[in-house]
Amino acid sequence: MSPARIQPRTLKGFRDFLPELMLPREQITDIARHTFRSYGFSPIDTPALEYLEILLGKGGAETDKQLYRFQDHGGRDVGLRFDLTVPLARFAAQHIGELGTPFKRYHIAVVWRGENTQRGRYREFMQCDFDTIGTRSVAADAEIVLVAHDLLRAIGFERFTIHVNNRLVLTGLLESLGLDDRATDILRALDKLAKIGPDRVAAEIEQTAGASADQAARVVGLVQITGTNDHILTQLRPLVAGSQRGQEGAEHLAELLSAVAAAGLPPERIHLDASIARGLDYYTGTVLETMLDDLPQIGSVCSGGRYDNLAELYTNQQLPGIGASLGLDRLLAAMEELGMIEKTHTPAQVFIPYFDAARLGDYFRLAAELRSAGLAVEVYPEAARLGKQLQYADRRGFRVAVIAGERELAAGECQVKDLANGESFTTSLADNATAVIAEIGRILAK
Amino acid sequence: MSPARIQPRTLKGFRDFLPELMLPREQITDIARHTFRSYGFSPIDTPALEYLEILLGKGGAETDKQLYRFQDHGGRDVGLRFDLTVPLARFAAQHIGELGTPFKRYHIAVVWRGENTQRGRYREFMQCDFDTIGTRSVAADAEIVLVAHDLLRAIGFERFTIHVNNRLVLTGLLESLGLDDRATDILRALDKLAKIGPDRVAAEIEQTAGASADQAARVVGLVQITGTNDHILTQLRPLVAGSQRGQEGAEHLAELLSAVAAAGLPPERIHLDASIARGLDYYTGTVLETMLDDLPQIGSVCSGGRYDNLAELYTNQQLPGIGASLGLDRLLAAMEELGMIEKTHTPAQVFIPYFDAARLGDYFRLAAELRSAGLAVEVYPEAARLGKQLQYADRRGFRVAVIAGERELAAGECQVKDLANGESFTTSLADNATAVIAEIGRILAK
Repeated sequence: MSPARIQPRTLKGFRDFLPELMLPREQITDIARHTFRSYGFSPIDTPALEYLEILLGKGGAETDKQLYRFQDHGGRDVGLRFDLTVPLARFAAQHIGELGTPFKRYHIAVVWRGENTQRGRYREFMQCDFDTIGTRSVAADAEIVLVAHDLLRAIGFERFTIHVNNRLVLTGLLESLGLDDRATDILRALDKLAKIGPDRVAAEIEQTAGASADQAARVVGLVQITGTNDHILTQLRPLVAGSQRGQEGAEHLAELLSAVAAAGLPPERIHLDASIARGLDYYTGTVLETMLDDLPQIGSVCSGGRYDNLAELYTNQQLPGIGASLGLDRLLAAMEELGMIEKTHTPAQVFIPYFDAARLGDYFRLAAELRSAGLAVEVYPEAARLGKQLQYADRRGFRVAVIAGERELAAGECQVKDLANGESFTTSLADNATAVIAEIGRILAK
Repeated sequence: MSPARIQPRTLKGFRDFLPELMLPREQITDIARHTFRSYGFSPIDTPALEYLEILLGKGGAETDKQLYRFQDHGGRDVGLRFDLTVPLARFAAQHIGELGTPFKRYHIAVVWRGENTQRGRYREFMQCDFDTIGTRSVAADAEIVLVAHDLLRAIGFERFTIHVNNRLVLTGLLESLGLDDRATDILRALDKLAKIGPDRVAAEIEQTAGASADQAARVVGLVQITGTNDHILTQLRPLVAGSQRGQEGAEHLAELLSAVAAAGLPPERIHLDASIARGLDYYTGTVLETMLDDLPQIGSVCSGGRYDNLAELYTNQQLPGIGASLGLDRLLAAMEELGMIEKTHTPAQVFIPYFDAARLGDYFRLAAELRSAGLAVEVYPEAARLGKQLQYADRRGFRVAVIAGERELAAGECQVKDLANGESFTTSLADNATAVIAEIGRILAK
């Protein structure tokens, strides 16, 4: 009886990850976890499903519309998380008493948004967030920049720039100009700088925020200051001299730059960029974006900033913090484009063909010996023609094959074959395959 | 303006993972991934959401009832995956042409079931599955047993037993007895062996399957054979001599036992157990369960078996396979009970207090030097009283503090403090903190 077939397919905007895609993904999340941990960030996790009221209204009308929401078996209104920040706020409100502050966490997990897939967006994607909450110290901001830097370096990037700014600088200038109550309109106009140019931004500021031509020019002038970090700082300071918050912003930037320099961050990788703001409302101090020098058009691959009060909707405890998020999909796309991803379908380096049915135990023992030396080893599961098995090994991307037929095994030997060039070396199996392990090491080190 | 507060809470049956819980969880999934990879299993991932028709009717009426299902924005009927086997079947049907066989994958991911939480079940939990598909070779079955073994060993277990059986043995006996068309009733009765004892099982077999007293006694006799693996094999063989499938089952068991022995699996850790069947319908050959010798009552922590046709609902390509699943929550509960989990709230070993505000750069530089040596290091983010900071370090579970005030830094020195016993060693900061790194290594090695 053949059952009625169901068409095997995935939902629009959702993806299967085959090994070729999943191996680099796991490699990056491994590096991310290792980097976060090396700074003392601890892992947490939260449920994929939350009470709807936790999620609604936290990311604006567009996010609400994109929420995957439904009623569960108990008739509760629930939704799938759309980011890791709202869950962190809920989590912190619930557990901060037990956790204590400062609290440094990372969270690597999947989120869901019913996005318009025509814009090339996915409806399920992974986020890698790291945050320090419960402190206003600039040391925490500087550390987030260092983590972003170490992360990109550990992944293998050399040419990238972390752009930093402090939202208080613009706030300070607007206070000096008496325009602080029109910050939202001004930020909205400034956000279009790259797209429409400084003149039209200035015109928009005059129009929507009711600023004078001189005021608009000074605002646009601020975000256009260029030069070395020291030069920009020198230019900023007089602009915000009339505002305590503005001065604070400039001082925090100076402290941050000096701390990351002391920690050894190469000066060419950090750039004070008065033009970045990162959204209209959320961030209140330091903001950062990380651009790949060879692919600036893809946008920031690691972004974040400082916020004043993470969990105000859930608790009256004030929880300031600073955090950032690694854009995993964007980063992987960039690595693909830059040829940084090795095409492989297997996490193992060593392949052992199985072509003498009576010798399975020997192949298994040999594989166990190689694994004891830290090698990842696949034994082909069926006694089949050697040619077929080597074809399989080649397609999967193995580096080395260790080949032993009846004759070799009887002589206590095997062939260690470099699959890149086909060279083969007769090697003794004695002493727990010590010589085989050495030979494999030599080939892998090439 | 204080916004209306929303009560921060999680849904019933869902959990937050604080660092104390998440650190051992990540440790185990790391070990699992490393073990799977060492055998050449590749990672894959699939969407959390699937078309409802993919999920419905695959796990029985109870599973259908527990499905989290709803209509998405496009009016499609969708559901959250309730296991990783149905997604694997759909995935294999869709991609096996590209992947080729044999295909070895692991999948570590969260699944959802609207279970009755009163039974202590969670509605969201993580599964760690590993499967080899596209081969009928016993070598693949033996390898799954080896992976289960290496996994438990790598996690730190010494005392455990992998119970193996082959479903064909019972099938063969039933064929010999002419009872093969009543297998389901008989399996249902045998399933109650531990609960109601052999006599009542035999009575039920007579009653529900219409077997004679002698036939029922022979069936119950089979699953009660005890002794060494060799002894059990010797006892089994004549019982299934009249059935080709039964003989095949016995031979496969013999081959599997011999292959895992050759690979070095200690004989006391594998036990031929004719009583295990693992469910009524799904498995068709080898089955396995892994019991902790010190906590048998918690049940199997790693179970699986061979199946004939993974993806028959989605494709006409026959895909036999063998796989198993690590029970992560159960395993963690067992480790907790056996005192195998170190209580810690931080992934970092080394704590650097920050108590001289002007010296942040020095603390950051020192931390960077220690990180270069592979240490995980947290710098406290605020210049605060040393006592407060050490209290924080103590609560988090740090092992070592590296303390340097203005006086020490001026002298090029620091104190390396063993937080377990309070001992402190004055150490030079020269040469990129070489002596500090050595001193920390000495303390961590204790």
